Amino acid sequence: MLIVHKYGGTSVGSLERIENVANRVKKARDAGNDLVVVVSAMSGETNKLVDYAHHFSKTPARAEMDMLLSSGERVTAALLSIALQEMGIDAVAMTGRQAGIRTDENHTYARIESIDPTAMREAIASGKVVIVAGFQGFTESGKVSTLGRGGSDLSAVAIAGALEADACEIYSDVDGIYTTDPRIEPKAKKMEHISYDEMLELASLGAKVLQNRSVELAKKLGVTIIAKSSFSDAEGTTIGKESEEMEAVLVSGIALDRNQARVTIRGVSDRPGIAAEIFTKLADEQINVDMIIQNASSDGTTNLGFTVPASEIERAKKVIGGFDHDIGGMDFDENVCKVSVVGVGMKSHSGVAAKAFSTLAANNINIEMISTSEIKVSMIIKEKYGELAVRSLHEAYELDK
Amino acid sequence: MLIVHKYGGTSVGSLERIENVANRVKKARDAGNDLVVVVSAMSGETNKLVDYAHHFSKTPARAEMDMLLSSGERVTAALLSIALQEMGIDAVAMTGRQAGIRTDENHTYARIESIDPTAMREAIASGKVVIVAGFQGFTESGKVSTLGRGGSDLSAVAIAGALEADACEIYSDVDGIYTTDPRIEPKAKKMEHISYDEMLELASLGAKVLQNRSVELAKKLGVTIIAKSSFSDAEGTTIGKESEEMEAVLVSGIALDRNQARVTIRGVSDRPGIAAEIFTKLADEQINVDMIIQNASSDGTTNLGFTVPASEIERAKKVIGGFDHDIGGMDFDENVCKVSVVGVGMKSHSGVAAKAFSTLAANNINIEMISTSEIKVSMIIKEKYGELAVRSLHEAYELDK
Repeated sequence: MLIVHKYGGTSVGSLERIENVANRVKKARDAGNDLVVVVSAMSGETNKLVDYAHHFSKTPARAEMDMLLSSGERVTAALLSIALQEMGIDAVAMTGRQAGIRTDENHTYARIESIDPTAMREAIASGKVVIVAGFQGFTESGKVSTLGRGGSDLSAVAIAGALEADACEIYSDVDGIYTTDPRIEPKAKKMEHISYDEMLELASLGAKVLQNRSVELAKKLGVTIIAKSSFSDAEGTTIGKESEEMEAVLVSGIALDRNQARVTIRGVSDRPGIAAEIFTKLADEQINVDMIIQNASSDGTTNLGFTVPASEIERAKKVIGGFDHDIGGMDFDENVCKVSVVGVGMKSHSGVAAKAFSTLAANNINIEMISTSEIKVSMIIKEKYGELAVRSLHEAYELDK
Repeated sequence: MLIVHKYGGTSVGSLERIENVANRVKKARDAGNDLVVVVSAMSGETNKLVDYAHHFSKTPARAEMDMLLSSGERVTAALLSIALQEMGIDAVAMTGRQAGIRTDENHTYARIESIDPTAMREAIASGKVVIVAGFQGFTESGKVSTLGRGGSDLSAVAIAGALEADACEIYSDVDGIYTTDPRIEPKAKKMEHISYDEMLELASLGAKVLQNRSVELAKKLGVTIIAKSSFSDAEGTTIGKESEEMEAVLVSGIALDRNQARVTIRGVSDRPGIAAEIFTKLADEQINVDMIIQNASSDGTTNLGFTVPASEIERAKKVIGGFDHDIGGMDFDENVCKVSVVGVGMKSHSGVAAKAFSTLAANNINIEMISTSEIKVSMIIKEKYGELAVRSLHEAYELDK
């Protein structure tokens, strides 16, 4: 089997931990696998370098930031390769460029355009374990680029895709994806399998494990991800294509997103396109609008409701304030949260949403907004009821069984 | 003017010091110069990374070491570029590869094979100050390579040569080359000019400023070096071609080398080539033999005297021990030092050596070995007389005037 491993910053956060990673790699190697290992910078390193840059400038040039930040992953890659060689394993360290990772010119959050896997393939064919500095590539003009937050996961998934690897194991300090946040519901269970789409909808549950960009890329490339802990031998969670087995399960998990604020715009005039104008302006300001509902009111105007991240509420107020000739008024509520029930099984089962509503009703929790997709029901409720809602729903769908 | 600056590890040893360097670069820029700035890693960084590697292996792979160690210079280059941009100076940071520095495959002490200055030239033509990560290049197979100790000086000199720069200013925490070590003779004077050959012979006086490899390369490429301090505005010392002005000066400086041990081999049999065999064997063991004298003795055998670095005396003893059938015996003396009187003026003036001998004689210092070149007289004396010899000679040649 050809397997890609990826170890995050915490997993390589000290020389001892790098040694621990080397032992894991050796074990997988001794089991007869071909291996490519993608590594992050030692935890703290990237932040240190960012602080250095900010000592000189609040807005350092992005190409310079990339040369600066890419150094951390190179250090880890070289050290891990040295550690493996000392154990008698034939290893070779590669930078993003040496691994053939070409990106666009969008420094500090570049997109991978292509991977030329020739050098990696040759090294693997000659019996080597390939260690790749994650998070980085090179542009057409020959500069170093970096892939933004979660970039090493992206490197690993893209490499697994380019090499048609059998699996991409993402190691962190968390041993998988749980049915809900175990800090809220101690009965939360680790999932064995989850589909790409479920993972995307349950983003907040996997936030410490995997960013959505990597999941999206894995889905596109058909790469199977296994999320595991580098500190234990526990089985992880497999993130892959939907299977019949997954569809047999009604609901996979319950997610809670506290970073939500509700905006209500009353009396939006019936001039065509006014809502579109508001949302365009919000998008221009990089404010992510999540759930949207629109109701016609009796006087010919409409009420428009939507949510934005709580952290962006002040900027949203400013944008909407610019439309005061076209609207009757606006309300804001930052004390809300979003509870989501997710499961591919919903596609073939009815009544999932109804059960969610009745469960919250039985707990006297008022639902302020609802949005549904094929595999998800999301509800905006008062923030103080968030944890109660999660626990009630977790029990209602028997996720602890 | 097109000027290359090079700042060593101490000069960029903290964020404040990098800011200081940025101010110096700005000053040179504001004076209307085109600039390429070569930087070392922040002091301590390279040693830290070496320690990391040695945690895993006593003999880490050299290609891996190069990926590891090259990261320090990249960090400094990116930070300096960011600092300059913040001051409103159009700067661009380049890795060794981006600057076009091709080396051989000899990792950790690679030699520069060629420089393709196209990218640097284009950046300069578009009005940019180019910041280059020193100490590194890339090999034909696309790997990162490093140039060994003093590698950033080599980068700077080679770049100055490739760009036909008007000068190469090497900044450190020392403000130039002195007529002798000021810790031995407080009356030592900083030299204004010194020739490449004098600098090579006075290596120990410039040890903290410039390594011989860089001086040799500068001589070969005809690059004028100016050694300056990054912590003061003092004029530095110019190292360049011999000039008439230099030749007017009889003696430029007095150097003391304490790392010397004298070896005497008595009764070397008259079998042809036995001396050559001994020296070949020493060379095979990487033991540097410095001064050599051979005297015929009355019984048809000869006595062979030479010096080796004191730190290599034990290994030298072992090598020579292997020849005990061919020699009468051997003596070792580690309590010696070498005093050298250097000056291109010697070429055209007689009596320089005689003055050295009489000066030491007047101080009752016995000379054990003598070796001379066109521009140098070196004498082996007892180590305890070393400082007295330096002071006496410094005065005799009126270097304090």
